[in-house]
Amino acid sequence: MPKKTTGFNITFIVCVFGFLWWGFTAQKEAAQETAVKQIFDETLKNGKSYADLEYLCKRIGGRLSGSPQAAAAVEWAKQTLERIPGINSSLQAVMVPHWERTGKEEARIISKHIGWQPVNVCALGGSVSTDKFGLTAPVVKINTLAELDKLGAKVVSGKIVYLDQAFDPTIINTFDAYSACASNRFTGASNAARYGAAAFVLRALASNTDHHPHTGSMRYEEGTVKIPAAAIATQDADVLVGLLDKDPNLMLHLKLHCQNYPDRLSYNVLGEIKGTQFPDEVIVVGAHLDSWDNGEGAHDDGAGSVQCIEVLRTLTNLQLRPKRTIRCVLFMNEENGAKGAQEYARWAAENGEKCIAAIESDRGGFTPRGFTLETSTDSLTQIRIATLRRYESLLKPYGLHYFEKGFSGVDVKYLLPNGTVCMGLVPDSQRYFDYHHTPNDTFDKVNERELKLGAASLTALAYLIAENGW
Amino acid sequence: MPKKTTGFNITFIVCVFGFLWWGFTAQKEAAQETAVKQIFDETLKNGKSYADLEYLCKRIGGRLSGSPQAAAAVEWAKQTLERIPGINSSLQAVMVPHWERTGKEEARIISKHIGWQPVNVCALGGSVSTDKFGLTAPVVKINTLAELDKLGAKVVSGKIVYLDQAFDPTIINTFDAYSACASNRFTGASNAARYGAAAFVLRALASNTDHHPHTGSMRYEEGTVKIPAAAIATQDADVLVGLLDKDPNLMLHLKLHCQNYPDRLSYNVLGEIKGTQFPDEVIVVGAHLDSWDNGEGAHDDGAGSVQCIEVLRTLTNLQLRPKRTIRCVLFMNEENGAKGAQEYARWAAENGEKCIAAIESDRGGFTPRGFTLETSTDSLTQIRIATLRRYESLLKPYGLHYFEKGFSGVDVKYLLPNGTVCMGLVPDSQRYFDYHHTPNDTFDKVNERELKLGAASLTALAYLIAENGW
Repeated sequence: MPKKTTGFNITFIVCVFGFLWWGFTAQKEAAQETAVKQIFDETLKNGKSYADLEYLCKRIGGRLSGSPQAAAAVEWAKQTLERIPGINSSLQAVMVPHWERTGKEEARIISKHIGWQPVNVCALGGSVSTDKFGLTAPVVKINTLAELDKLGAKVVSGKIVYLDQAFDPTIINTFDAYSACASNRFTGASNAARYGAAAFVLRALASNTDHHPHTGSMRYEEGTVKIPAAAIATQDADVLVGLLDKDPNLMLHLKLHCQNYPDRLSYNVLGEIKGTQFPDEVIVVGAHLDSWDNGEGAHDDGAGSVQCIEVLRTLTNLQLRPKRTIRCVLFMNEENGAKGAQEYARWAAENGEKCIAAIESDRGGFTPRGFTLETSTDSLTQIRIATLRRYESLLKPYGLHYFEKGFSGVDVKYLLPNGTVCMGLVPDSQRYFDYHHTPNDTFDKVNERELKLGAASLTALAYLIAENGW
Repeated sequence: MPKKTTGFNITFIVCVFGFLWWGFTAQKEAAQETAVKQIFDETLKNGKSYADLEYLCKRIGGRLSGSPQAAAAVEWAKQTLERIPGINSSLQAVMVPHWERTGKEEARIISKHIGWQPVNVCALGGSVSTDKFGLTAPVVKINTLAELDKLGAKVVSGKIVYLDQAFDPTIINTFDAYSACASNRFTGASNAARYGAAAFVLRALASNTDHHPHTGSMRYEEGTVKIPAAAIATQDADVLVGLLDKDPNLMLHLKLHCQNYPDRLSYNVLGEIKGTQFPDEVIVVGAHLDSWDNGEGAHDDGAGSVQCIEVLRTLTNLQLRPKRTIRCVLFMNEENGAKGAQEYARWAAENGEKCIAAIESDRGGFTPRGFTLETSTDSLTQIRIATLRRYESLLKPYGLHYFEKGFSGVDVKYLLPNGTVCMGLVPDSQRYFDYHHTPNDTFDKVNERELKLGAASLTALAYLIAENGW
């Protein structure tokens, strides 16, 4: 008899606890569903990210590291964060590269078939100038950098090397098409200089055909001659290639004015909501405040910057106090050095920061579709992806359906060695490389609803992780 | 012993057949995976839909039923289909309504606070004119049509009724926000006329705030006075509402010039690839060739039209001969009557057409995300959805993740009573109602890659259904 009673009691207790646990979980799930709905509603109805972006793009504009505009952006970001009630905001000092375009850039094709025709070019970030009268030289067209080895100095010496590598249009995600080309922009000039080239020009890294050249970072390798490096707009690249077929002896005239200055002091801008239960555990939402100089840096990465600020504003407006700390980090110098990200990661490691997650928004203000995730080991990545996917049902009503292993972001990935789970907001990729690094990356190219949906997605995920941990 | 042998034989035979079946299915699956890849590659690399759309928008332009431009669009579509080798193309005659905007539209707010200020309006399609000097009257603002019953003739008579119903920004799919408002545009004028209103004006049905008024169809109910009906741009609507708060006696001056003419002869444009095995079974890909007069009809529905043409061109270029017939139907008069769709459905029923599926593209040329499906019964819908979802793994690599029960399209839904499974291509919805029915729905608002991805998605699904049936 006693034995039977004990059995009954244990079953009964297990049932009661099971029921309570189920009830607790269901209640928690319902509360989080409500919170996510509140976040999207608040962001879409009352969000300020679009107005913030207009200020950043139209009143400040392009803001390359070291420029007066970058300093203005730092001040603007600090003030904007301070205007959110209760936000602790601070600056983190960092020395950054300082390169400038110092005059009008010009190029023209000179051919017996057409006389001459202007083409749209821009210097790559970090390039040296031509001399003040420009340089004029015949063109050697290559399709891959490897061709340089075959051609050798005999063919290449004294010429302008033109790399005609286009995006593969059959790659659905345009970031993959970009990745296949981007390293050539970085290393092309030094590769060409090794064979005595006078300059290096590449077809702009773009998913469309138009007259905007796309800039982007490049670097001279130690021990190579520094030759001018530029990108030519895709439409003009088509003209150049067409004319080269008819007139292999055509010349390109190229005039670039740019200069490297000593590094300057700048700042990452930080703001945070302290966690109520585990204030030492931090979830970073990050974007970069700097942009290239030739446009307004609207999609890249004004959009991400205002979205990260909006995360703190939305949670504050809704009085949703997360259990863990949510920190907005606006990194300086993503475009040509990532010194801000490196400094933040160094500081975090040195101070033993428990940064359990970092989510970057740096793929444009387009309709969000989900998140990528990476960690320092494959096995941990699998575990974290599984946890992330538990939020799929909560986020699917808002169009988020993509929760996959993948590259997080140029800035937050520096936190990987610290043990941080690094994630990236993934918006629709189709239009990003029409605007990326061009004078055309302007405020009017950003759709208000798309931008706000991205901000809300970022807020929702940061909040869920802050509530539940891993 | 004999019993045992039989058992063994049956097991053996079942295994062999199972293995063969598995092999056959796997082979078929692999072949279809290859075909889908070929379709996307061909469309993205060599597709002509973007060039077609440029012609339709820039060389023909807005093409409302009965207009010379609609006739030009019919001729253009027929010629464009005929230029695809092996396509059988034909016209299907249909009488369509013919309404025209016959002069400049004007409106201004007259208030003691500001003197007067022009606002952007456009007549709704089907509206009568004001007299040639326009009409000037005080404004009664309502938030729902139901308020008219409460206000009654005493308040409304002689006034301009202004319906201030905005999109709900918290609804993620903008088509749902639109649906919540659209019937008021259709019936508002007659509702207001019943209480003696002088005119009916509504806040443009838009997901954004700008200065473009959005037109769209309306109808006068039998037995009601026909009063002018117009939409006011959202930016101007905000001004009007703000001023009304301060000056409830302000007047609105409204001048509309438009006219209904007798119905005219026009055409649906058809083209098809005959099926190799079941030529009598037809899969329709459909869009509407007409558009409103005030823009270029780029997203609505030039995009859908060129995508449907592209379906036939891509399959022809790839020499993918489907087992069942794939027919492109470009419907006339979706915008103000759907007479083309009604005529096509009537003809199909009369001729006992076995139209097993119809897929419409009429939600803009944005990044495709999936398909909706509906049939005449709920139970059949469930069965067909299950079949559709079998293609999910094939289509997911191209960003298609949404395969749900839902509204197919204004034109193809007339085929529901014929037993046709009706589907709709679902692109991202966020930007559609920025442009819908405005002067701003122009070619430059369409992104080439997005348009082509939609064309490829349509082609892939039509091909898969043509190969496999249901």
